[in-house]
Amino acid sequence: MTLSVYSPERYMKEAFRQAELAYEKGEVPVGAVVVANSRIIARAHNQVEMLNDPTAHAEILAITSATEFLGNKYLEDCTMYVTLEPCVMCAGALNWAQIETVYYGASDEKRGYSLIGKNILHPKTKINTGIMANECRQLLEDFFKELRED
Amino acid sequence: MTLSVYSPERYMKEAFRQAELAYEKGEVPVGAVVVANSRIIARAHNQVEMLNDPTAHAEILAITSATEFLGNKYLEDCTMYVTLEPCVMCAGALNWAQIETVYYGASDEKRGYSLIGKNILHPKTKINTGIMANECRQLLEDFFKELRED
Repeated sequence: MTLSVYSPERYMKEAFRQAELAYEKGEVPVGAVVVANSRIIARAHNQVEMLNDPTAHAEILAITSATEFLGNKYLEDCTMYVTLEPCVMCAGALNWAQIETVYYGASDEKRGYSLIGKNILHPKTKINTGIMANECRQLLEDFFKELRED
Repeated sequence: MTLSVYSPERYMKEAFRQAELAYEKGEVPVGAVVVANSRIIARAHNQVEMLNDPTAHAEILAITSATEFLGNKYLEDCTMYVTLEPCVMCAGALNWAQIETVYYGASDEKRGYSLIGKNILHPKTKINTGIMANECRQLLEDFFKELRED
């Protein structure tokens, strides 16, 4: 099967590539891209360790980068692809950005925003889950396994 | 009454001064400082408009600045003074930072984290409210009144 250049799978692959970059740098492997008009306008991966900054999640960095690119604090016509379910902080940021759609790969059973009873995303944000979920989860599991063995 | 240099009121005054700086720049007037060992190690105010970045809340910028200063992604022995109740995004960030104590001035009845049923701050974080609450609220009310009249 060949992937359409504009398919969600294709964009999630780009987010996954970002997660792999994080892995290579010793960061928890999470990656994100933001798409507007079928074009990737921001790519980011988790940089918490390198920046010593607990807010430097892939989603936060991707939002900052995408809004900078657009010159607009809202991402109303944008889609984010992120390899892991956003945490509460990132869901709150996506809410402020009023992002149109979020696709996430693996669920986060410990820190995912959906553990909070209320929907803390913007009411108009559409959520899609499960694309490349296994690969995204496996990458995280490999990372933490390696970390424990070090 | 003179304020002790190390009193919570004194630090909240510094956060309020940051909020005033935001006001002067046409930003929603919210300010924050982070204190470690009685010393202010970070000062920040809301910069959402200037940076076109919905994540550029005073708390996020202050956390980034304080962790950078300490070279540590945790603020376990730190206190944040912020003029307005943190939103969900900022509460999530304070959770990741494992901050010891948060003092906030005015409550945020629309976007405050406490509207979310569960406590989304870190279990060990202590919360104190109400210092300079009236001044902090009044500054916000003045700002939005002026905005509507423009």
